[in-house]
Amino acid sequence: MLSGEVGGIELAGKLIVFEGLDFTGKTTQARLLARRLQDEGCEVVLTGEPGGTAVGNTVREILLSRRNSGTLDDFAELLLFLVSRAQHAREVVLPALDQGKTVVSSRYRLSSLAYQGYGRGIDLGLIERLNEEATRGRRADITFLIDVPVEVALARKRGDRDRIEAEAVEFYDRVRRGFLELTADDPSVHRIDGTGDVDATAAAVAGCLGL
Amino acid sequence: MLSGEVGGIELAGKLIVFEGLDFTGKTTQARLLARRLQDEGCEVVLTGEPGGTAVGNTVREILLSRRNSGTLDDFAELLLFLVSRAQHAREVVLPALDQGKTVVSSRYRLSSLAYQGYGRGIDLGLIERLNEEATRGRRADITFLIDVPVEVALARKRGDRDRIEAEAVEFYDRVRRGFLELTADDPSVHRIDGTGDVDATAAAVAGCLGL
Repeated sequence: MLSGEVGGIELAGKLIVFEGLDFTGKTTQARLLARRLQDEGCEVVLTGEPGGTAVGNTVREILLSRRNSGTLDDFAELLLFLVSRAQHAREVVLPALDQGKTVVSSRYRLSSLAYQGYGRGIDLGLIERLNEEATRGRRADITFLIDVPVEVALARKRGDRDRIEAEAVEFYDRVRRGFLELTADDPSVHRIDGTGDVDATAAAVAGCLGL
Repeated sequence: MLSGEVGGIELAGKLIVFEGLDFTGKTTQARLLARRLQDEGCEVVLTGEPGGTAVGNTVREILLSRRNSGTLDDFAELLLFLVSRAQHAREVVLPALDQGKTVVSSRYRLSSLAYQGYGRGIDLGLIERLNEEATRGRRADITFLIDVPVEVALARKRGDRDRIEAEAVEFYDRVRRGFLELTADDPSVHRIDGTGDVDATAAAVAGCLGL
């Protein structure tokens, strides 16, 4: 087991997840935290979903190419994200944790509950059952929910602003409500205000870990 | 609604499925029955899983290319088959049935229960729940289970016989037992002896429909 105590918290073998809407800066914040932890001497694996494996990358291509075509079945979409998660857990996340590394991932189980559950209306119990199977029961140890109002997140979607329809806003409203409701009583989740600049958000994240 | 009475049985809007181990001749028999029904005046859609849609074909490629590499997670494999099924139901099967056509499919829900349930040990209740969601609750009206002993099926796998290991035989034994147990009390399933030649098997299938 590696030594990985940071700010009085043992992070070796721990899974740290960044969640939130698209365009909230999750991946940037995951990268900044990973670098910070490496500077503190942690052995860190920086990763994210969907993707991160050969199977996951093919699945990601299906999701991206079909997302706007209107032909992808909602349930098939859910299952594709779970395929990517199962393969990512098996090949990347669980082996690294077993080796005592700190895994920092952009997205994990919560995203499916918020997007496909709250957003698309698929049964939350079924999604959680699939999450359990796909991750072999492994939950995140620490989650940072980067929270940004829907209008702010969508305004950051550069170049595409004209294409944002009312339907999209309503969908993201449901997803955001999902993230907030699902994490309201969970002490392992730190809700971070993501409306400030990158450095301010990174400082808020680091502060939660005593850095 | 089309007229599709054959041998005294109304087949318009009905889903006919062929199930069984690999190399039992399911797809050949599906094709022969489809042609026979067309000769009788039915409007028939001949199809099969996995595949049959753009998404399904990509999923099929993942399944085929990963099947022997040992890197595909068992649960991810199950979900990939269900992705293909959901998309196939949405794009091909359900619309055709709604139009009063007769759909003849090689493989459907039962294959996942037999292969991933009995074969891989994944919970049957979970698989059936996923089948329900993926097919929007649509079950087969008539199923032909083409039954062949495992040794006979594997011996038909031309050119690869040397590669058949004991593990493969045990796996297919479990899958065959699954097909038999799952259908034992189901009056919509016709168990067909597939050890004879193609014409004999086709005649047995046709006989079940009064042809």
